Amino acid sequence: MTMNVLGYATHSPTDDLAPYRFERREPRTDDVVIEILYCGVCHSDLHNARNDWGHAVYPMVPGHEIIGRVLSVGPTVTRFKQGDHVGVGCMVDSCQHCEACEKGHEQYCDEGSTYTYGGIDRHDRMPTYGGYSENIVVSDKFVLKVPDGLDLAGAAPLLCAGITTWSPLRHWKVGKGSKVAVVGLGGLGHMALKLANALGADVTLFSRSKGKEQDAGRLGAHKVVLSTESEQMEAVKGRFDLIIDTVPYIHDVNPYLSTLSIDGTLVLVGYLGGLEPLLNTIPMIMGRKSVAGSLIGGIAETQEMLDFCGQHGITSDIEVIKIQEINAAYERMLKSDVKYRFVIDMASLKG
Amino acid sequence: MTMNVLGYATHSPTDDLAPYRFERREPRTDDVVIEILYCGVCHSDLHNARNDWGHAVYPMVPGHEIIGRVLSVGPTVTRFKQGDHVGVGCMVDSCQHCEACEKGHEQYCDEGSTYTYGGIDRHDRMPTYGGYSENIVVSDKFVLKVPDGLDLAGAAPLLCAGITTWSPLRHWKVGKGSKVAVVGLGGLGHMALKLANALGADVTLFSRSKGKEQDAGRLGAHKVVLSTESEQMEAVKGRFDLIIDTVPYIHDVNPYLSTLSIDGTLVLVGYLGGLEPLLNTIPMIMGRKSVAGSLIGGIAETQEMLDFCGQHGITSDIEVIKIQEINAAYERMLKSDVKYRFVIDMASLKG
Ligand SMILES: [Zn+2]
Ligand SMILES: [Zn+2]
Ligand SMILES: [Zn+2]
Ligand SMILES: [Zn+2]
Repeated sequence: MTMNVLGYATHSPTDDLAPYRFERREPRTDDVVIEILYCGVCHSDLHNARNDWGHAVYPMVPGHEIIGRVLSVGPTVTRFKQGDHVGVGCMVDSCQHCEACEKGHEQYCDEGSTYTYGGIDRHDRMPTYGGYSENIVVSDKFVLKVPDGLDLAGAAPLLCAGITTWSPLRHWKVGKGSKVAVVGLGGLGHMALKLANALGADVTLFSRSKGKEQDAGRLGAHKVVLSTESEQMEAVKGRFDLIIDTVPYIHDVNPYLSTLSIDGTLVLVGYLGGLEPLLNTIPMIMGRKSVAGSLIGGIAETQEMLDFCGQHGITSDIEVIKIQEINAAYERMLKSDVKYRFVIDMASLKG
Repeated sequence: MTMNVLGYATHSPTDDLAPYRFERREPRTDDVVIEILYCGVCHSDLHNARNDWGHAVYPMVPGHEIIGRVLSVGPTVTRFKQGDHVGVGCMVDSCQHCEACEKGHEQYCDEGSTYTYGGIDRHDRMPTYGGYSENIVVSDKFVLKVPDGLDLAGAAPLLCAGITTWSPLRHWKVGKGSKVAVVGLGGLGHMALKLANALGADVTLFSRSKGKEQDAGRLGAHKVVLSTESEQMEAVKGRFDLIIDTVPYIHDVNPYLSTLSIDGTLVLVGYLGGLEPLLNTIPMIMGRKSVAGSLIGGIAETQEMLDFCGQHGITSDIEVIKIQEINAAYERMLKSDVKYRFVIDMASLKG
């Protein structure tokens, strides 16, 4: 039997989000039915709702930083039981047999992973709807365990902002003694500072404006470099093994290349588009430097990140809102007026 | 005592190269005095002679693909003796104490390595002059052994074209089963095909024009893909672990990014400048792909490459010229009319 659920949806790029009733699929044997407690508000929710990337499907129920409680599980599900606290991130399925999937990199699935919202279910070909809603039904392979003791609301953003910064930190082997810099102090950036610090790295924040020192320090940065000050930039020339660039809009990455060490990598996690001003190959060639991209992370890696956060008591810095405040929250996000992530208390849906 | 030697020099960006007499330094205790037998003609000789990169120093004696015979050695030199066949590449010195130098990456020396020509000697502050000349005096640490049995003229281009392609092949761990593609079939590209093939990789040449199959196959490519044919490009989507891009002028690298596998790297070894059209980050993010640069290679790595070439009988495909033909050779290089490297027979200097 399908389940009729209440959520918030938008019906066009210019509509506000508003209450919307829709059907969740009848659970399959491997499905976990989840009551959603909290859902983080990711920048891509805003981009998708407004069709900034050109592939929006309406009606759209955004939300892919989901924390909930298990209501019921299908007969083949063994890892979860009713009452468990669980998470769901950006993906709810993938082909499960390509090379990427076999390596646990479901986000790079050859056939494309199934996104939590705005996707098409691989089995019933129905659209997927996200976490701004009462309930969700997800295959057990894409459900994460939330470690005991982690604040549930603060854990929601780990499912996207957390894993998006964790995955490159791990892939490029950041650990004790690594020199890491983070560009941009938003939802992604503040998680990058916390995670890199907890991994034992020496952590620097690149900022374009003064006054970030106190917050950055509290979040895990050992140093703040004003990228607008050439003397400060010169002082960190050749310093960083890894730069995580979280900036979601077009910006010049060339000044950061000079601050990479030999064999250093600048990894873009926030910006989709053409690199302008032109990426200059000279510093790349003169120091075997790389510019790379990285997309969220695999499911096993997401569980690893959640477990790590459980051990280190790491959650996101959040501002909890009611679902009725979501349109105002989007406007504030456009002005970067959030420290550092909005999380919807889904109990408000009933309010 | 300094040594008065005959070479070919240019005195301005627009002058032809012409006979020129100059002094080589009095050998220091660790110096090797070399009679030059052959010198390869690298694209950067042409760029430097014409000041295309804006830092030319005149008079300039180009040449950094040097094969010669040892005439004498200083008292502290133990690795070489009179009569040995030796090579000298793009560098003749470096600081020897920075992190890069300590790792054997002298090409990335913190203080800048001393280039074979157009540089300034670190000890006597005199300009360096390259291999288009009778003799050269080089510190033993920067002199390479030429394995027995290797054709001396064909070995000359290994000192730049060879190591420039060898270094990324090794750094990105190309071996049996690796899928490697090469962009551009010139001096660098033809060496990349030979070396990648000998390392056991599955090798593809990207070409913009038909008719390269026979040559490419003979040089080590298992396949040629016409990059102008979208069907052929589509067929190799997601295929390559490493793409070595040897193209020395501005060109669109975006089509090649789609042919990289997850975690694949496109490494630029030929083009210094801005990437235009704009490098699109979407394929990079959607498959954790990297764009990197690489510069020649370290000295130990150059020796490793020469030894490998000795074992596998690999030399460059060359056209031997007289030094008097150098200006005509430059004109032909501008039209890519060389298969695949000019090498100057330095005996012609006496002719
Ligand atoms: Zn997100
Ligand atoms: Zn897959
Ligand atoms: Zn060269
Ligand atoms: Zn050095």
